[in-house]
Amino acid sequence: MILIKGGGGAGLNWEGIARDIAELCRTNRITLVHGASYLRNRIAERLGQEVRTVISPSGFSSVYTDPEAIEVFLMAYAGVANKRIVAILQRQGVNAVGLSGVDGRLWQAKAKRDLLVREAGKTKLVRDNLTGRVEAVNTGLIHLLLDHGYLPVISAPAISHEGDIVNTDNDTATAVMAAGLGSRTIVYLFEAPGFLEKAGQEESLVSHIPRHEIESFLPCAQGRMKKKLLGAMQALASGVEQILFSDGRVEHPVRDALAGRGTIIR
Amino acid sequence: MILIKGGGGAGLNWEGIARDIAELCRTNRITLVHGASYLRNRIAERLGQEVRTVISPSGFSSVYTDPEAIEVFLMAYAGVANKRIVAILQRQGVNAVGLSGVDGRLWQAKAKRDLLVREAGKTKLVRDNLTGRVEAVNTGLIHLLLDHGYLPVISAPAISHEGDIVNTDNDTATAVMAAGLGSRTIVYLFEAPGFLEKAGQEESLVSHIPRHEIESFLPCAQGRMKKKLLGAMQALASGVEQILFSDGRVEHPVRDALAGRGTIIR
Repeated sequence: MILIKGGGGAGLNWEGIARDIAELCRTNRITLVHGASYLRNRIAERLGQEVRTVISPSGFSSVYTDPEAIEVFLMAYAGVANKRIVAILQRQGVNAVGLSGVDGRLWQAKAKRDLLVREAGKTKLVRDNLTGRVEAVNTGLIHLLLDHGYLPVISAPAISHEGDIVNTDNDTATAVMAAGLGSRTIVYLFEAPGFLEKAGQEESLVSHIPRHEIESFLPCAQGRMKKKLLGAMQALASGVEQILFSDGRVEHPVRDALAGRGTIIR
Repeated sequence: MILIKGGGGAGLNWEGIARDIAELCRTNRITLVHGASYLRNRIAERLGQEVRTVISPSGFSSVYTDPEAIEVFLMAYAGVANKRIVAILQRQGVNAVGLSGVDGRLWQAKAKRDLLVREAGKTKLVRDNLTGRVEAVNTGLIHLLLDHGYLPVISAPAISHEGDIVNTDNDTATAVMAAGLGSRTIVYLFEAPGFLEKAGQEESLVSHIPRHEIESFLPCAQGRMKKKLLGAMQALASGVEQILFSDGRVEHPVRDALAGRGTIIR
């Protein structure tokens, strides 16, 4: 099983990703997870809604999520992005089925209603945050679809144990899912050639990160890359063999990733 | 198999529908289809987009659909409405899975790019309309989910034979689906107690319409009710035994419909 996570940036070559998947899925079990952060921000902006990013005391950024923000999440992730990607895959002959983490309780999350955030040098408590951390995955539903020739295309949001729709971190959820599915490889595609030692400087690409050295790269990981590295640590600890960080903008994003063009973590 | 179609009005009691389904699905195979027209109009308005309704020469209204309108469709139907209904059902213990007609090519439509419309007394040709008529249904995917304890929750849009996302009429699609699934009963729930002989006058409720008299009711059917009646004719012609038009706003919408509280067509 190969788990592919396509980022939510505007520059990803989804046609290329779909072509690669159409080829790969003849001989491999593939599950696709995608983001939609660019689209989410664009819709929020058009609706005059502010996307409020909060920083935890340990330095991780996340989006503060009230009921209005959940609505925009559903529009962007489960609505527009998910169905567009499904249609692109269908045009390549791949029988894709789009699901959110809510469907069939695919991503079951522990709700974190209260959140400690760091603002203007102070630690504050933010309440009624509709986010959660994925703890369990309905792998049965994914296997059911794969066994019958469908390719699952999955995105946030998740569902809390109480049945509320909650925002969750896609990268962490991907790592939890990989473990549950017994996936050997996770491919993360985004708008960079791989893990960069210096943010924005493509020549600082790190081509190999041995699993026991991941922590030493955390300090130079910017923004969401930090979560991706932590997700990688978590996935490797639970049995995943290799994690590939690679460029989603090129002609053959998945093929190049599997050929080792980006960063290999194992 | 009972096919339930919940309308897209703001007044539907989805908690009540979910409670009824939770009870019914212990002993019946149920598939749910839903609309989201109220939500679609609200999102379009917030985005400053005009919902352009066109009238065919024979008097049927539909929504003109350009790529912008498809985006709003995806937001409202496949995004917000679908996942909220899935979460409501999940809270009632029903393992719901939300799908659009795009997923697994569930609703395969013949695209109708050019459309004859009646405007200001003249017949005009409108081009590049992204709509289609559902011709085939992937009933295999629905049975696969039902056989494994999942309840499918389905909405527009559909996918054209060429793989484009197209808007389609939910009521017609429901009728095509019922035939494909060998469904004996279709329940249509909306914001009225059933079929009204005089629009808006609830005391003009028609409690029975014999199948061969449907056509005589077409002249007094307003707006979308016309399509529902035509869908009913089509469904009965392809083997459905009874069609129930009933009130989606009451405490037990589905239970009341099955008890014959609304309009029974057979």
